[in-house]
Amino acid sequence: MGFPVVGVVGGGQLARMMLGPAIALGVTVRVLARSADDSAARVGHDVEIGDERDLDALRHFAAGCDVLTFDHEHVPTEHLHALEAEGVAVRPGADALVHAQDKTVMRRRLTELGIGCPRWAVVGDVDALRDFGDAVGWPVVLKAPRGGYDGKGVRVVRTAQDADEWLATSGPLLAEERVSFRRELSALVARSPHGQAAAYPVVETVQVDGVCREVLAPAAVTAEHAVAAQHAALRIAEGLGVTGILAVEMFDTDDGVLVNELAMRPHNSGHWTIEGARTSQFEQHLRAVLDLPLGETSMTAPHVAMANVLGGDIEDMYAGYLHCMAHDPGVHLHMYGKDVRPGRKVGHTTALGSDAERVRARAVHAAAFLRGDIDG
Amino acid sequence: MGFPVVGVVGGGQLARMMLGPAIALGVTVRVLARSADDSAARVGHDVEIGDERDLDALRHFAAGCDVLTFDHEHVPTEHLHALEAEGVAVRPGADALVHAQDKTVMRRRLTELGIGCPRWAVVGDVDALRDFGDAVGWPVVLKAPRGGYDGKGVRVVRTAQDADEWLATSGPLLAEERVSFRRELSALVARSPHGQAAAYPVVETVQVDGVCREVLAPAAVTAEHAVAAQHAALRIAEGLGVTGILAVEMFDTDDGVLVNELAMRPHNSGHWTIEGARTSQFEQHLRAVLDLPLGETSMTAPHVAMANVLGGDIEDMYAGYLHCMAHDPGVHLHMYGKDVRPGRKVGHTTALGSDAERVRARAVHAAAFLRGDIDG
Repeated sequence: MGFPVVGVVGGGQLARMMLGPAIALGVTVRVLARSADDSAARVGHDVEIGDERDLDALRHFAAGCDVLTFDHEHVPTEHLHALEAEGVAVRPGADALVHAQDKTVMRRRLTELGIGCPRWAVVGDVDALRDFGDAVGWPVVLKAPRGGYDGKGVRVVRTAQDADEWLATSGPLLAEERVSFRRELSALVARSPHGQAAAYPVVETVQVDGVCREVLAPAAVTAEHAVAAQHAALRIAEGLGVTGILAVEMFDTDDGVLVNELAMRPHNSGHWTIEGARTSQFEQHLRAVLDLPLGETSMTAPHVAMANVLGGDIEDMYAGYLHCMAHDPGVHLHMYGKDVRPGRKVGHTTALGSDAERVRARAVHAAAFLRGDIDG
Repeated sequence: MGFPVVGVVGGGQLARMMLGPAIALGVTVRVLARSADDSAARVGHDVEIGDERDLDALRHFAAGCDVLTFDHEHVPTEHLHALEAEGVAVRPGADALVHAQDKTVMRRRLTELGIGCPRWAVVGDVDALRDFGDAVGWPVVLKAPRGGYDGKGVRVVRTAQDADEWLATSGPLLAEERVSFRRELSALVARSPHGQAAAYPVVETVQVDGVCREVLAPAAVTAEHAVAAQHAALRIAEGLGVTGILAVEMFDTDDGVLVNELAMRPHNSGHWTIEGARTSQFEQHLRAVLDLPLGETSMTAPHVAMANVLGGDIEDMYAGYLHCMAHDPGVHLHMYGKDVRPGRKVGHTTALGSDAERVRARAVHAAAFLRGDIDG
């Protein structure tokens, strides 16, 4: 059998953060990156430069791998079907991954499975959008079915007319009820090809302008809603045949939890697990796609907080290390090796402890300091 | 300033285990390895092939690094002095490292510092050895001052005549009293160039034939002896001007703790810190040699045990992953990417929990299973 080779399509920070666990396990991670400057390509031992939208590049890359998995969802679904037809072990498989690639396909399938979602409709023109909005109430959330991330491809519209131009050029869009929620949650689960599944504690995600800023573990939700969120994520993983990590972003509402988005790979809402859980989501993803038994998901401290480091005014974030480490010997700093650009996720910080507010403040302080928002 | 480059001389598993923390911190680790098959060379992004006994190879390697540090102690001391004279930041420096390279230099200096050691003498011939043994009692431990590791270069002799042949060919050897101890300890500390130091909990090491088999954290010693061991390690770090991790192996005796050996790099007795301490020894070493503030050293669980995976009958240890992970979802498996040879350290396992005996049994079971000592 020997130690296997996992091919990761995409050279972003998620691929990068798989490298450490892979080195520990003795599993080889190969990375298909578009550029040698990509986050994972800068540190990986085994990097192939190629474009994942090119089937031949995918084929060439897959030939050296035992299993293919992903750093992102932007691989054309038809290419994945082609690779599977040629015998490549694609995990998650094309039929599962399409639900993370196409929000309309996802909504349709979750509704079939009886999973709670905001009310939704596919709208092809202004009239259809108006009918939907008048039925569920304005404003309405309008989404491009494919290609969006971090708030891109998503707009909140107050009237149908606001979307006139977009609808005229986009093809059908997904319209969703804008639910009023107490907080946003993420339920992270892992599932392996033979069907074993494991759930992490449900976390709260704090979003600003559609971009995750903080993750708080565990979420301060009722036990009932936490269980409902984990249960929904496990049902989705099984129902869609997911292999690897599945992140289900949800709204915690007075009436229960409603699914917002899916991702089938390690997810920003799971970065806290690197130090905060007995098995990190990155190791867990590797174990799951390799069909190895899954690791323990319990927390290593009562409370864990993660804060994203977004690009700000400071280009050289290493200068902030001295302050952050001296200020808080327990804070964990992660940098992705990416050039700093405004708003870009270039790293994250994690703090652990017994006081939720204090832990959150520590992670946020370190991230703000590295970004340049705090002077001292 | 920018993110620095740490050059690690040597491509073994210690260099390998620095890579994960370096990737997280955004610090570049370059590796000087003798062969592309070396443990760290198999996974590092930035590997130079060269021989650390060749000053020009060291010079070439150092030119691309901000700081030079080590995977092992086998670099000629005079080369390190030459590099320092040329302005290379060598950490630990040559004047510190010599104490980990030469056991006689170490004994002399520790004795000057008033650190408890077994009684010792440098013996050049059988008569000198006989005088020493008659004074301290037989058997006596005889050591080559340089080059030994894992029990190599060390012999227990019952009479002076037993060492006749060795003494005739070796040059002066270090003779040491064989102390009777309750257990063997290791005190791990880190120290940075500006003098900050941090101590990890003192651990027990279980040795078989001079090779470490298990590490139990924390050691079941009296608080007085634990503090004495930490205190001695911190005094040695300061007295010798160590930068980076210092591991002090000690004997826990009825009369107190006595120093056995020193290592100035991450050490086998600190592998448990990867999951068992808030800052692993590998991250701590990088922080220390870069003169960054040191990280928290507290434990992530009440008890942590590490067991070495030594080469046995099974060449393909991946086959054991399924059993080990299914048997114990909380056990952590580490493989060094080394070809299996009998007795060679090829990996380790770590378990954490609240019951010391159970934690130890879990780590030992996994290591024994991977090696092939247990059928199921």
